[in-house]
Amino acid sequence: MELSARNQLKGTVTDVKLSTIMAEVEVDVGGQTVVATITRASVERLGVKTGDQVTVIIKSTEVMIGK
Amino acid sequence: MELSARNQLKGTVTDVKLSTIMAEVEVDVGGQTVVATITRASVERLGVKTGDQVTVIIKSTEVMIGK
Amino acid sequence: MELSARNQLKGTVTDVKLSTIMAEVEVDVGGQTVVATITRASVERLGVKTGDQVTVIIKSTEVMIGK
Amino acid sequence: MELSARNQLKGTVTDVKLSTIMAEVEVDVGGQTVVATITRASVERLGVKTGDQVTVIIKSTEVMIGK
Amino acid sequence: MELSARNQLKGTVTDVKLSTIMAEVEVDVGGQTVVATITRASVERLGVKTGDQVTVIIKSTEVMIGK
Amino acid sequence: MELSARNQLKGTVTDVKLSTIMAEVEVDVGGQTVVATITRASVERLGVKTGDQVTVIIKSTEVMIGK
Repeated sequence: MELSARNQLKGTVTDVKLSTIMAEVEVDVGGQTVVATITRASVERLGVKTGDQVTVIIKSTEVMIGK
Repeated sequence: MELSARNQLKGTVTDVKLSTIMAEVEVDVGGQTVVATITRASVERLGVKTGDQVTVIIKSTEVMIGK
Repeated sequence: MELSARNQLKGTVTDVKLSTIMAEVEVDVGGQTVVATITRASVERLGVKTGDQVTVIIKSTEVMIGK
Repeated sequence: MELSARNQLKGTVTDVKLSTIMAEVEVDVGGQTVVATITRASVERLGVKTGDQVTVIIKSTEVMIGK
Repeated sequence: MELSARNQLKGTVTDVKLSTIMAEVEVDVGGQTVVATITRASVERLGVKTGDQVTVIIKSTEVMIGK
Repeated sequence: MELSARNQLKGTVTDVKLSTIMAEVEVDVGGQTVVATITRASVERLGVKTGDQVTVIIKSTEVMIGK
């Protein structure tokens, strides 16, 4: 399956923090850190853990510009 | 002003497309492309143009993981 | 690639409208209509057209409840 | 009050999980499951519980397509 | 129908701009301007026009803080 | 740094609730309450506390209209 989401960045998971419902996943993307706040259920379903090669996915309408 | 948004990536604008209301801004972030769909009014207010050093800003709750 | 996004609904494209930058895709999901506003570039890259079997993907943090 | 949100799907709540700040609500929409991550305060204010007839609301700019 | 969305601010429409697919609605909320980018189809369905008393609705997960 | 986000409302923090990963910040904006659900890490990094003068930031594509 190919996704409409324009932003699909390759990276490596550097940290995973779990709470009851939410989880925070840190990904190194070419030397800069991207943080994803997703559900704990998704972290467990995908088995996301430190060292994993993952794709960070972001819909373009969610991206802002600062200048 | 400091922002709560966790993701603030440095990059260079490589393309700007304008429509009546929306605009599409492409930013090179360490060799990977990030696309932002923002309003044309914001592109004009900030004067965003190819070659600009900008910051791509994304709230962590908008980021998904693919594995 | 498996996605962290919790909502992945199967459906059939019933309409595609294109503008300069944005596009509107209507999908029949079990008899109810779901509308996706994505970029025209994504519609063209995926070749989305009426009759396609697609997956509608929505991050759970984007879903509200009305009661 | 009528909403601008294009996606308003009828369904039945099948599960509610509560944390300190966040909550996860599962809704059956025509045989497919939709998960909403909303605040616990909203679950309590609306009195959302298993068996409730609810409307799942999603702004069209939040919907992606996979093909 | 009551909404889970935490932010529901009363205001008055001060401007409506239409494009092919998208529309931009400006609302005066207690002296500060809030801009909503929604679909043209929603503007037409609700009949949104300058002078209307409306409610601006924002899910709390979409709100950032600057300090 | 100037932001593309169209909505930047001045307000005063009236409450901060912390969980393991998420936090809820209530801001008085001209007499109406705006709630932001951000990460606890962001609350701590910015040192957000009751009484702070802050800016509430919302991308226009996240705003809905009710009428």
